[in-house]
Amino acid sequence: MKLHFAANSRAMRVAWLLEELELPYELISYGLGAPEMRSPEFRQLHPMGRVPVLEDGDVTLFESGAILEYVLSRYGEGRLRPDVSSPAYPTYLQWFHYCEGMIMPPVNNYMVETFFLPPKRQSEVHAKRARKLLGQMLIAVDHALDGQDYLAGEFSAADIMTGSAAMTSKRADVDLSEMPNLTAYLERLSARPAFQTAAALS
Amino acid sequence: MKLHFAANSRAMRVAWLLEELELPYELISYGLGAPEMRSPEFRQLHPMGRVPVLEDGDVTLFESGAILEYVLSRYGEGRLRPDVSSPAYPTYLQWFHYCEGMIMPPVNNYMVETFFLPPKRQSEVHAKRARKLLGQMLIAVDHALDGQDYLAGEFSAADIMTGSAAMTSKRADVDLSEMPNLTAYLERLSARPAFQTAAALS
Repeated sequence: MKLHFAANSRAMRVAWLLEELELPYELISYGLGAPEMRSPEFRQLHPMGRVPVLEDGDVTLFESGAILEYVLSRYGEGRLRPDVSSPAYPTYLQWFHYCEGMIMPPVNNYMVETFFLPPKRQSEVHAKRARKLLGQMLIAVDHALDGQDYLAGEFSAADIMTGSAAMTSKRADVDLSEMPNLTAYLERLSARPAFQTAAALS
Repeated sequence: MKLHFAANSRAMRVAWLLEELELPYELISYGLGAPEMRSPEFRQLHPMGRVPVLEDGDVTLFESGAILEYVLSRYGEGRLRPDVSSPAYPTYLQWFHYCEGMIMPPVNNYMVETFFLPPKRQSEVHAKRARKLLGQMLIAVDHALDGQDYLAGEFSAADIMTGSAAMTSKRADVDLSEMPNLTAYLERLSARPAFQTAAALS
């Protein structure tokens, strides 16, 4: 498998999964906003010129959530995803999808208003609104972690999705001081060797 | 199964799937912004007081994408989702996740800036930016539909996800006049009896 990657992007989730599963892959790394990602060749892989993209033989696909489910289905051998018959399965699905459904939209808006736009086009009102909404989304994760180490019981790909989104949120200046479960959870995830390997890629 | 529902929300996707699969369900319908959705009882079902929520015996889950995958896995009997071994499977996953990953964030921002915020707090700059981004996201769907009727070959739950997001976009004043494949696709989806039943729920 070839993973088209950039540091501090959603591609890190795919690398994290591949490291957890100890699957071999070739890393093709781009700098943030690299011109190669706007080339016609790269747009054949991803129409908007983004990462991650996974190539696996004849298969090419984008969207980090899709790639995680693909890798788990084809190569996971039952690891990091509860069996469909398990009571943990719906919980797994819920938190897997919560990442892009609930956490990433305010994360993205916050990043646009504080980082991606030139300073004079940034809006403090919009940045504050995004950070407030993000805080609300994270409180639900904190509550869900009450009494358990991971979102679906055992560590799973739902933790890679929602955990990585929560880590990005932490970098977005959200105050986690009243979210002790979430704080401990992010430390627990950060201590995983596969996470550390993926986070160190560049 | 009990489906907590509101018209013009992501809950419509769940109703559409249940209608396609001809599965029986009880509809519990709320008006937009109904106070019951802010009650402590409802927040036991969804911490932010949103729909859809699906109850199925002991199982309660939210996030439309999670609910669709749950229903397909437990009750789909192989319908509306390609088999994992099929070449269509990665394509299915990609477009299933594209809905919330790419289309819904600008849809939401557009709706916030034109509908949800009181008029004097709305920002025309932000509304225009969201609509422009949304147009780019939809062009990729238009291209993907070149030469095929549905995103993963046969009609699948990926069409319920990305198709419903594209329909919402159409309501967000995006100009689809140069997207003939997408325009025909939305007509094709709208003609499905299960879609029509779900869209008429209130």
